[in-house]
Amino acid sequence: MTKYRKDEKTSYCLGTTLTFELLLRKPEAATRIYISPKQKRDETYQKLVSLARANHVAVIENNERIFRDLSDKDNVMVIGEFEKWDGQIDAKENHIVLVNPSNMGNLGTIIRTSIGFSLPQMALIEPCCDIFDPKVIRASMGAIFSLRFKRYKDFASYLLDAEGHTLYPFMLQATTDLKTVAPKAPWSIVFGNEATGLSQDYLKVGEPVIIPHSPLVDSLNLDNAVAIGVYWFTK
Amino acid sequence: MTKYRKDEKTSYCLGTTLTFELLLRKPEAATRIYISPKQKRDETYQKLVSLARANHVAVIENNERIFRDLSDKDNVMVIGEFEKWDGQIDAKENHIVLVNPSNMGNLGTIIRTSIGFSLPQMALIEPCCDIFDPKVIRASMGAIFSLRFKRYKDFASYLLDAEGHTLYPFMLQATTDLKTVAPKAPWSIVFGNEATGLSQDYLKVGEPVIIPHSPLVDSLNLDNAVAIGVYWFTK
Repeated sequence: MTKYRKDEKTSYCLGTTLTFELLLRKPEAATRIYISPKQKRDETYQKLVSLARANHVAVIENNERIFRDLSDKDNVMVIGEFEKWDGQIDAKENHIVLVNPSNMGNLGTIIRTSIGFSLPQMALIEPCCDIFDPKVIRASMGAIFSLRFKRYKDFASYLLDAEGHTLYPFMLQATTDLKTVAPKAPWSIVFGNEATGLSQDYLKVGEPVIIPHSPLVDSLNLDNAVAIGVYWFTK
Repeated sequence: MTKYRKDEKTSYCLGTTLTFELLLRKPEAATRIYISPKQKRDETYQKLVSLARANHVAVIENNERIFRDLSDKDNVMVIGEFEKWDGQIDAKENHIVLVNPSNMGNLGTIIRTSIGFSLPQMALIEPCCDIFDPKVIRASMGAIFSLRFKRYKDFASYLLDAEGHTLYPFMLQATTDLKTVAPKAPWSIVFGNEATGLSQDYLKVGEPVIIPHSPLVDSLNLDNAVAIGVYWFTK
């Protein structure tokens, strides 16, 4: 047993809450539940074990080392192990598209907000940070287990799965103000990298949109911009 | 010279960008600029030194230790030192009120977004994380130097500075949907702690508002909820 590695087939969610989310939302991906010897054998414990058994997921109670290997916090008493899955998205539904997201905390938060506003279809354009890293799982608060997503080598590849979609790239260089936009479904809202945004090329894609902001800041924080965009498009 | 301490009168912003923000937006608070011997003596350096001199701010170029003490990153070549200031807010303007914010990254991001939407008046209700911690300064991307804020020992004390304000507490227990709200100015939008939100008592305060979300998530991330609220109220 080693620390999480991107090239392995399994990943982990740390803590009781996330492990419940795994077992409730994505039980078919769950492979093992680790419970620390230090975890109290209380009602939560009973529920967790029952839920794991009901889903034919092994419960391991004598592996202390994995807690040291995967968590630097002392209060993690439960770890869920799951198999990474290959995502698919549905061309008939609305999409959120993230081009080259690089920050794992941001990606997790964006997943949580997307699921929060019932927009569970996400396209990720490479290069992209590792969506299965435990940091993303944690920042998503387990919402990743309700997400449908697919990674694409470039934006052109994504377009093959977005037939008939109206594309709305969010860009500082756009002239159409978000609050004047009446979304035409099915739509795709497209956001760039935290530091660099979307390249000028996206000005030729669909209907570019701007969230106007004060000159006192260079840009909005990516996950805040996405939250505003998702809220406006789904309200 | 020691690491940053909450009980000292000065704090620090790390990096060239933040230091420029300090000198441009809040020069009266700036006390010293430290420049690493490793910093290239290039155009940025010249601009920084000129700006500091124009504002009568001392430039220290031979203190390597402060870079080790304040930053664990090798690429910080400039540090701005400033005196903490006592905030005031203007009762005639709209306010954002944060009740017991505990996460410094969140607080910084919220400051950046508030300034981004020209809502520069912030009330902080204690207990509250240290707004002058370099982590908050960094997450705000320097927007804190454009912020007016005041800390209050409790919500009742804040109300004395909010005469005539319509209060909108954001709560999961509220029944009025944000998208039906037409803000009555001057207004105060009020948000609770990251983990616990606002207590039930706030249901009796002003006009409580909810941002409805899917049952698949427990709540929205605080800074995303604030971003949506600020956007809606200032659009």
